[in-house]
Amino acid sequence: MQNTETRTIGIVMNGVTGRMGSNQHLKRSILPIIEQGGVPVGDDTVVMPDPILVGRNPAKLERLAEETGVDRWTTDVDAALSDPDNEIYFDAQITDLRHESVLHALDAGKHIYCEKPSALSTEHALELYDAAEDRGVVHGVVQDKLWLPGLQKLKRLIDSGYFGRILEVRGDFGYWVFRGDQVPAQRPSWNYREEDGGGIILDMFCHWRYVLDNLFGGVESVCSLGKTHLKKRWDESGEPYTCTAEDAAYAMFELAGGATAQFNSSWTTRVRRDDLLTIQVDGTEGSAVAGLRTCLMQPLGATPRPVWNPDVDNPHSFYDDWLPVPAQEDHQNAFKTQWELFLQHVARDEPFPWDLLEGAKGVQLAELGYDAWEQRTWLDVPALDRASARA
Amino acid sequence: MQNTETRTIGIVMNGVTGRMGSNQHLKRSILPIIEQGGVPVGDDTVVMPDPILVGRNPAKLERLAEETGVDRWTTDVDAALSDPDNEIYFDAQITDLRHESVLHALDAGKHIYCEKPSALSTEHALELYDAAEDRGVVHGVVQDKLWLPGLQKLKRLIDSGYFGRILEVRGDFGYWVFRGDQVPAQRPSWNYREEDGGGIILDMFCHWRYVLDNLFGGVESVCSLGKTHLKKRWDESGEPYTCTAEDAAYAMFELAGGATAQFNSSWTTRVRRDDLLTIQVDGTEGSAVAGLRTCLMQPLGATPRPVWNPDVDNPHSFYDDWLPVPAQEDHQNAFKTQWELFLQHVARDEPFPWDLLEGAKGVQLAELGYDAWEQRTWLDVPALDRASARA
Amino acid sequence: MQNTETRTIGIVMNGVTGRMGSNQHLKRSILPIIEQGGVPVGDDTVVMPDPILVGRNPAKLERLAEETGVDRWTTDVDAALSDPDNEIYFDAQITDLRHESVLHALDAGKHIYCEKPSALSTEHALELYDAAEDRGVVHGVVQDKLWLPGLQKLKRLIDSGYFGRILEVRGDFGYWVFRGDQVPAQRPSWNYREEDGGGIILDMFCHWRYVLDNLFGGVESVCSLGKTHLKKRWDESGEPYTCTAEDAAYAMFELAGGATAQFNSSWTTRVRRDDLLTIQVDGTEGSAVAGLRTCLMQPLGATPRPVWNPDVDNPHSFYDDWLPVPAQEDHQNAFKTQWELFLQHVARDEPFPWDLLEGAKGVQLAELGYDAWEQRTWLDVPALDRASARA
Amino acid sequence: MQNTETRTIGIVMNGVTGRMGSNQHLKRSILPIIEQGGVPVGDDTVVMPDPILVGRNPAKLERLAEETGVDRWTTDVDAALSDPDNEIYFDAQITDLRHESVLHALDAGKHIYCEKPSALSTEHALELYDAAEDRGVVHGVVQDKLWLPGLQKLKRLIDSGYFGRILEVRGDFGYWVFRGDQVPAQRPSWNYREEDGGGIILDMFCHWRYVLDNLFGGVESVCSLGKTHLKKRWDESGEPYTCTAEDAAYAMFELAGGATAQFNSSWTTRVRRDDLLTIQVDGTEGSAVAGLRTCLMQPLGATPRPVWNPDVDNPHSFYDDWLPVPAQEDHQNAFKTQWELFLQHVARDEPFPWDLLEGAKGVQLAELGYDAWEQRTWLDVPALDRASARA
Repeated sequence: MQNTETRTIGIVMNGVTGRMGSNQHLKRSILPIIEQGGVPVGDDTVVMPDPILVGRNPAKLERLAEETGVDRWTTDVDAALSDPDNEIYFDAQITDLRHESVLHALDAGKHIYCEKPSALSTEHALELYDAAEDRGVVHGVVQDKLWLPGLQKLKRLIDSGYFGRILEVRGDFGYWVFRGDQVPAQRPSWNYREEDGGGIILDMFCHWRYVLDNLFGGVESVCSLGKTHLKKRWDESGEPYTCTAEDAAYAMFELAGGATAQFNSSWTTRVRRDDLLTIQVDGTEGSAVAGLRTCLMQPLGATPRPVWNPDVDNPHSFYDDWLPVPAQEDHQNAFKTQWELFLQHVARDEPFPWDLLEGAKGVQLAELGYDAWEQRTWLDVPALDRASARA
Repeated sequence: MQNTETRTIGIVMNGVTGRMGSNQHLKRSILPIIEQGGVPVGDDTVVMPDPILVGRNPAKLERLAEETGVDRWTTDVDAALSDPDNEIYFDAQITDLRHESVLHALDAGKHIYCEKPSALSTEHALELYDAAEDRGVVHGVVQDKLWLPGLQKLKRLIDSGYFGRILEVRGDFGYWVFRGDQVPAQRPSWNYREEDGGGIILDMFCHWRYVLDNLFGGVESVCSLGKTHLKKRWDESGEPYTCTAEDAAYAMFELAGGATAQFNSSWTTRVRRDDLLTIQVDGTEGSAVAGLRTCLMQPLGATPRPVWNPDVDNPHSFYDDWLPVPAQEDHQNAFKTQWELFLQHVARDEPFPWDLLEGAKGVQLAELGYDAWEQRTWLDVPALDRASARA
Repeated sequence: MQNTETRTIGIVMNGVTGRMGSNQHLKRSILPIIEQGGVPVGDDTVVMPDPILVGRNPAKLERLAEETGVDRWTTDVDAALSDPDNEIYFDAQITDLRHESVLHALDAGKHIYCEKPSALSTEHALELYDAAEDRGVVHGVVQDKLWLPGLQKLKRLIDSGYFGRILEVRGDFGYWVFRGDQVPAQRPSWNYREEDGGGIILDMFCHWRYVLDNLFGGVESVCSLGKTHLKKRWDESGEPYTCTAEDAAYAMFELAGGATAQFNSSWTTRVRRDDLLTIQVDGTEGSAVAGLRTCLMQPLGATPRPVWNPDVDNPHSFYDDWLPVPAQEDHQNAFKTQWELFLQHVARDEPFPWDLLEGAKGVQLAELGYDAWEQRTWLDVPALDRASARA
Repeated sequence: MQNTETRTIGIVMNGVTGRMGSNQHLKRSILPIIEQGGVPVGDDTVVMPDPILVGRNPAKLERLAEETGVDRWTTDVDAALSDPDNEIYFDAQITDLRHESVLHALDAGKHIYCEKPSALSTEHALELYDAAEDRGVVHGVVQDKLWLPGLQKLKRLIDSGYFGRILEVRGDFGYWVFRGDQVPAQRPSWNYREEDGGGIILDMFCHWRYVLDNLFGGVESVCSLGKTHLKKRWDESGEPYTCTAEDAAYAMFELAGGATAQFNSSWTTRVRRDDLLTIQVDGTEGSAVAGLRTCLMQPLGATPRPVWNPDVDNPHSFYDDWLPVPAQEDHQNAFKTQWELFLQHVARDEPFPWDLLEGAKGVQLAELGYDAWEQRTWLDVPALDRASARA
C-alpha cells in the first residue's frame, strides 16, 4: 500500500443540510470514507472524496461545516460547479428541485449521483438519463436498500439456488406515524401533503422497483390502491392540517419469471413482525423472511405439517420453525457501500449499474402505481430505454 | 329439569363420509350435542338431534355407523327424505352435487343446512335461496369461522369501540401443502383441479365474505389475482397429476365504512406468523391480531415509536408490544356452536341469520374474484336479493 | 442561530446549600441550562441564567461555588437583591424562613420562584400570592412531580381518553427510612420533628394537591389520619431524639368529576410495588399504573377474569397483564423542565401557570389534612382566590 | 385406630343448592370429611357428618343429591329439624332468611353453624348470639379467610415476633367485575342492588373484622367511603339494571395496640399485585405481604435503601427484595378446616371460638362502615356482649 497513489475527487454535495443528506450521505458515508483513508481502486490507487457543502441557508451550512470539520461550504452552487476539481455533483435536495439542478450540473460536465426519486415524472427522469448518457458521464441513483444486511443475506440465498423456483414475494413495510397532536410525528408533514411531493407511493415504490428488479425479476405489471387513512394531522409547529397524500398503499406486482409480489406500505399500521420492513419469499425448495439486518430461512425439509384445530390451543409455535442466516461479511452502512462503489466507478470511468435509467424505473413504477389506483385496473410496465431507442 | 320436553329432530346427513362431514359435523357437533343431552330451547324444551347417515358407499357408511354408534344409515337418500321425522336435510357432499340435492330436499319440505360454498355459481346459490324462501323452511349455510375463539375475541374488541375508526384489515391464510411425492399432501387432490371444483378462491372467498361483512363492513369491491404456483402434484394414490386450479390468491377489498382489506390465501407459503390464519386490524385508537384462538392487542397508548437504523441490530422486539385478549367464555367447537343455533332456530321456526342468502354472497365474492382476476381490474359487488326483488 | 440575542437573567438562589437546592436546582437544573447554552424564547432570543449563590454559611458557599464553577456567591441577601441584574429570587431555604424572605424579595421587585410548601399556613401562602400579584411580577412554585416521565405518560393516556370515565386513583408513596442507629437515616432529622416543620402531611400533601388537580380533577374534600409510628430516631450526629411529627399518613380525597383518590404516604413501609411512588388509575375502559419513569396499562379488552381458588397455587401472574407505555419524547430532569418553563415565562413577562396560588392550594390541603385528622372527620376544600376576591 | 368409636352427627344443610353452600360447604368440606373417614376427636372417637340437603327447589335438590351421592334431601326443614339425629343446623341461605331460620333451629335445640353475615343488622346478629347462649348449644359462623394458607403463614410470622411492633396493615381486595353487557359478570347481580342485600361493605367488612381482630388487634374505630362507580350493569338474563349498592369501599381502621389498617375493597379495579387479596404488614423489624396462598417477607436486615432518582431508569427491582415464607404444613380447603374444628367442638360440647358473637362483630363493622360513610366521620366501635351484660 505504500506505493499507492491518492486521487482526490471533489464532490458538490447539494442539499446536504437536509435529514438524509446530512445523516446518511455526509456523516455516515463521505466522512467515514475520508477517515478510513479513501476507497481503493485496483492495487495502486485510492480515491479520496473532498466534499463541498452546498445549500441555501448559510447559517445551517456553517454549523454543519463546524460540526463535521468539512472546511468547504457555499451557497453558490455555480461557483462550486465551476471548479474543475469538483468532478461529482450529488443532489439530495427536495425532489422538485432535482431535475433542473442535475441538468445544470450535467451542463457543467459533472458526474451525477442523486437521491431517489430522481424526478417527479418518468419523462423528467428519462430526460436526466438521456442527458447524462449524451455527455458520457458516470451517473447513479441511491438504491440503498440493496445493501441492507438483511437483503444481502436474502440475495445470497437466491444466488445459491436455495429457493428452487420462487413463487411469491411478500413485502410488509410500515409502522404507526403519530398524528402529531399528543405525540410528535416521526416524519415531516410534507409527506402527507400531495402538493408538497408527499405520498407513500412516490416514496416507497421507487424502492420496491429496484428491490424487485434486482432480486426477483423485472416488474411486468402493477395493481395498487392508495388510501389517506388519517385525514388530519398536526405539523412541526403543532398546527393541524389536512392530509392530501395517501398514507397507505396496497399493491400487487407480476414479475418476469412468473413470481408474484404483494407489498403493503403503510404509515398507519402497528408492527407485529420481525422488523419495520420484512420481505418473505416462498420457493418450491424453501422460504425466507428478511428484515433490515436479519434473514430467517425454512427449507422444505424443515417445513412442518401444521394441523388446523381451533378446538385446542395450538401447541406449535410457528416462530420456532425458522433458522437465522448468519452474516458472512461485515455489513457497513448501506449508503456508504453504494458511495464507495460509485467512487470506484468514477475513478475507473465505468458505467455504474444503478444509474439514472434504473432511477427512472423507480419513478415509472410510482407513476404507474398512481395510474392503476385511479383507473382501478392492472397496468403493464413498459420497458424504458434511451430517447433514441424510444423513437 | 324434570318438566322439560324433549323434541327429537331427525337429520338427513348427506355426504357425511367425507372429511368435513365426518369430523366436524358428525363427530364434533352432532354426537357431542347428543351426549350433552341436546340443546335447550327456552326453559321447557330440549331439541335432540337424531342423525341418519347418507352416502354412496355402503361400506364406508357401515364403518362410520359402527365407529360412532349411530344406528341409522342408508344409501337411499329418497327413503331418508320420505320419513317425516327427518325434518332437516344437511348437505356436505362435494360442491357440484349440492344444488340438485338441496332442491330435491326442498321439494320434500325439509329445513336445509349445508356446507359452503352453497353452489358453484351465484345464480345457482340464489336459486337455492329463492326455493327455500318459497317453501318457508328454515335454512342455513356453514360459516364456522365466525365462532373461532380468536375471531370472537376480535369481535368483542370491535363491539367495545376499542379500535376507534378501523383503517385496514389484513388477512393472512395458508401454509405449505406438500406436493404428495415425498411427503403426502394434507389436502385432497381435487382441491388442485378446476374441473373438480377446486381452487383456493372458491374455497376461501366464501369465508372472507362473511368474516368481512359481519366484522368490518360489507364488501363493496374486489380485485384479485390467482396463481397456480405448483403445476404438478401427486394424488392420493401416489400418481402425478397436472394442477389446473389456483393454489394462491392475492386480493384487495374495499369495505363499506371506508376500511380496506388485503387478504393472502396460499397453499404454497410457509408460516411465519402467529397462526395458520391471522387477521390484523389497524384502527386509529389501537390494533389487534387475531388467530384461530388467540387475539393480541396494542392500544395507541402502548404504540412504540420505532427507529429505522439498519446499522445496528434492532434492540426492540416488536412482538413484546402486544397483550393477549383473554377468553371470557368457554369456547366450544365452532361447527357445533352453529349447529346448536340452527337447531334452536328450527325448533322455534325462526329465520336463521346465516342463511342461503348469506351463503350466496360468499359464492358471489368467489365468482367476482375469478372475474376480476381474468379481467385484470377492480369489480364492484352488487347487492343480492330474492328473485322477485331482482326482477 | 447567529442572529439570536442572549438575554442574561441573574438569579438570587437562596438556600442553595441545602440538599434540594444544591442537587436538584443548582446542579441538575441551572448548571445544565447554562451548559446547553440557555433556553430559547421564540426564534431569536435565548435566556441565560446567571446564578448567585446565597446562604448563611460562607464556608459551605465557597465550597459549592468551587465545586460548581459558579463565581458569584454571598451571605448578604440584601446585596444580592439590590443588584438590578438579579431579576429572579429563588428560595429553597427551610420552610419557616420562606414567608419573610419572599416578601422581602417582592419588596425589591423580583420575580419569585420557590420550593414547596410556599408557607407554613394557607394564610401566609395566600399573602405571598397577593403580594406578588400586587407587584405584577412573575411567580412560581416548584411542582416537579408533574414532569416525572411516569406521570407524563399517565397524563398522555388521560388526554387521549383511554380511561373512559376515571373511577378511582390510588397513590402509594413511601419506603423505609432507617432509624439512624444502625443504618444512617436517608432523610434529615427535622422531617420527624413538628417543631422544625417536619411531618409527612406537610411534605407530601402539597404534591398530591397539584397532581390530583392537574391530572384527575380538583380536590373537593379530604379525610386523613396521621401516625408517628416510630417514636424515637437518631439524628445526623448519632444522637437519639423523640419524633414529634407524623411519619405516615393515610388519606382519602373526593375529586371534582366523581372519582375518589386514596393516598398512602409512609416513611415506615417496605416497598412491594413497581416504584417508590406508584399511582394506579382505574377507569371504565382501562387502568394504568404510573411510577417515576414507567407507566403500565391494561385496557378493558385485556382485563382478565380471575378465579378465586385458594385450594391451588394461582397459575396466573397478575403482573403479566400489563403493557408498558413507551416514552414518546426525551424526558429530562423534572426540576430543570420547570425551571426552563419559568425562565421562558419571565422572559416573555407572562403569568406562570404553576404560581403562588397553586402553591397555596398545596399548603391548604396539608392544613386541612391536619385538621381532618384532629377532628376525625371529612373536610371540604374551599376555593382559594386573591384577598380582594375573598373580601 | 381399630378401637375408635364412630359418632355420626346429622347436619341439616339449609340453602345448600346455592353457590357457596354447594361448592365450598358440601363438595369441598363435608363430602371430603366423609371420604377421609370423619374427623378424629381425641384418641378414640371419630365424628362422621351425615348431611341432609335442604332447599326450596326439589329439582335442584334431587340433582345435587344425585351428583354427590348424598341420599338424604328434603324441602321440609321442619321435618329435618324434628329428627333428633340431626344435631347441627347449618344455614347458607340468602342473608335475609338467616335470622328467622336460625332462631327456629335454636328452638329445636340444634347446634348452629352459619354463613356470614350472620344477620343484616347488629341487633339481629346479637339476638342470635343471645338465643344460642341461652340454649347452651355450640354455635359458630364461617370465618374462612383465617385458614387461607397465605394468612396462616402470616399468622405464624406474627406469633413468632418477627414483625417487632406492627405499625400498619394494608389490605387490597378486588378485581374487575365485568358489566355483563359484552362479557358476562362474574358475580350475581344482587350484589349490586342494595334492596337485595348487595354492597361490598356488607360483603367484605365481616371478613375484615375477624381478620383484623384475630391477627392484628381489635378494631377500635372506623372511617369509610363507599362508591357506586358503575351505575349500570347487565344481569343474568342480559337485561340492564341500575346499581344501587356500592361497588367499592375505601376504609381506615384503628386497632388496639396502635396499628392502623387501610383496606381497599373494589369490584372496579384491575389487579397489579400478587393476588386478588393481599395484606401487607409493616413492622419495626420486618414486613410481609400475604396473598391467598403465598406470603412474602422482608426483614429489616434485608431492607434496601432506595434512591429517588427519576433521571435514570430504576436499576432496582423492588419485587426482588422479598423472600417466600414456606408452607410448613399441608393446607387444605379453608372451609373444610373450619368445619372439622366445629365438628370437634360439637363432639366435645365445647364453646367454639368463632361463634355468633364473633359473627355479630362482623355485622357490626359493616353497619358502622355504612354509618361512617353517611356521617362523613370516624366512628368508634363499641364492645359487644350478651344482652344481660348490655343491660
